[in-house]
Amino acid sequence: MINSIKERRTIRKYLQKDISVDLLNDLLSASFRASTTGGMQLYSVVVTRNNDMKEVLSPAHFNQPMIKGAPVVLTFCADFRRFTKWCEQRKANPGYNNFMSFMNAAMDALLVAQTFCTLAEDEGLGICYLGTTTYNPQMIIDALKLPELVFPITTITVGYPNEIPTQQDRLPFEALIHDEEYHDYTPNAIDSIYKYKESLEGNLKFVEDNQKETLAQVFTDIRYKKSDNEYMSENLMKVLKKQGFCG
Amino acid sequence: MINSIKERRTIRKYLQKDISVDLLNDLLSASFRASTTGGMQLYSVVVTRNNDMKEVLSPAHFNQPMIKGAPVVLTFCADFRRFTKWCEQRKANPGYNNFMSFMNAAMDALLVAQTFCTLAEDEGLGICYLGTTTYNPQMIIDALKLPELVFPITTITVGYPNEIPTQQDRLPFEALIHDEEYHDYTPNAIDSIYKYKESLEGNLKFVEDNQKETLAQVFTDIRYKKSDNEYMSENLMKVLKKQGFCG
Repeated sequence: MINSIKERRTIRKYLQKDISVDLLNDLLSASFRASTTGGMQLYSVVVTRNNDMKEVLSPAHFNQPMIKGAPVVLTFCADFRRFTKWCEQRKANPGYNNFMSFMNAAMDALLVAQTFCTLAEDEGLGICYLGTTTYNPQMIIDALKLPELVFPITTITVGYPNEIPTQQDRLPFEALIHDEEYHDYTPNAIDSIYKYKESLEGNLKFVEDNQKETLAQVFTDIRYKKSDNEYMSENLMKVLKKQGFCG
Repeated sequence: MINSIKERRTIRKYLQKDISVDLLNDLLSASFRASTTGGMQLYSVVVTRNNDMKEVLSPAHFNQPMIKGAPVVLTFCADFRRFTKWCEQRKANPGYNNFMSFMNAAMDALLVAQTFCTLAEDEGLGICYLGTTTYNPQMIIDALKLPELVFPITTITVGYPNEIPTQQDRLPFEALIHDEEYHDYTPNAIDSIYKYKESLEGNLKFVEDNQKETLAQVFTDIRYKKSDNEYMSENLMKVLKKQGFCG
């Protein structure tokens, strides 16, 4: 299994072939065995198969074609609502409308999402994470009718692969590991860590096509801009408050 | 593999047996193939094997015995520092000292952590997540010397199992799934969803031992208290700011 994970790649193009309800439910059910904060299972999964719903979700994900192209879209939500309702019905005074509780629920949801992905890939399916979920949370909340204490944390598109893309590069192993304590990066270490990534033909072309001087500038000036990040940070906090977290 | 995940349990007691460096590195290396925001790999893993360091980490985790009992402790950190340093060295203007960037990095770190766990269990190891990581982040930051733009998001203890605990219960599958849109829980649905959990002998004893009236009260009054959550929410935000996120 280590070896199959080492060969994995994100899949963005899918065959026009449904995933059976039985297989999908089996995968989800198994993924619910993932570790969860205090056994509370602070998540919900919204399953999208309906084309009309995909149309509604699509703009929230900047119209990335995976939404409409995948047979199944899964929105993983941090969910303290179910647990809170249970407390209220059992003479208990819940206190989960806060940032810490949101983080606990978000972590629960992400562990389930990733377990699902590993299992789905092991069954021959391909997946793609859509980070756009937290960029436009309100559009997703509206589309999926998410009530208070429920927050969309990530989205996965899933289907049978219709491509074998080149595997994405990874930084050298040593760059990501710290023995006993954090060892900060010297300028030489940074050069060495990013050398391979910067040398890749696709990335060189990326720099050229975008008329930039360095690959890092493609990230800072185009893909993950300071102004966008700042806008989205404020928006994310605002929507978190609106959903009743950070109360 | 679905079947082995269905049988998994968290392991808190470990044999006095080391995990070889080769095996650990192989597992970590494979887990770095997990999906990552924009290919940026916004995480670092701090590996603790040293007993003195476990002594230092232990109080941050409320002295849960897994820290000292496990051969290996892994602290998974959201890390925008490496990437930011790279940008600075490449005439690019990074803008990742904000909440959105923290969330992206936290998600990256959690996907790696969970991939590691699935792989480790598949190799016969046992793992335990320590949610305490975000309860006392400053103690962990100090112990592991985490600099700005690095934040500890979760900790996993790992070792060869020295117990076969009872498998923890899970809510009914249907309770966690929403078809096309979120279907809110009626009082009857809540009763039905939590019925099995409330009927378990261990939970009945839990209620009695704590002299509570309901199982939910054990959570709200003892395990996950409103006042604790509120204190930790404020603290978490404070330490996030101190580490340079939410700038």
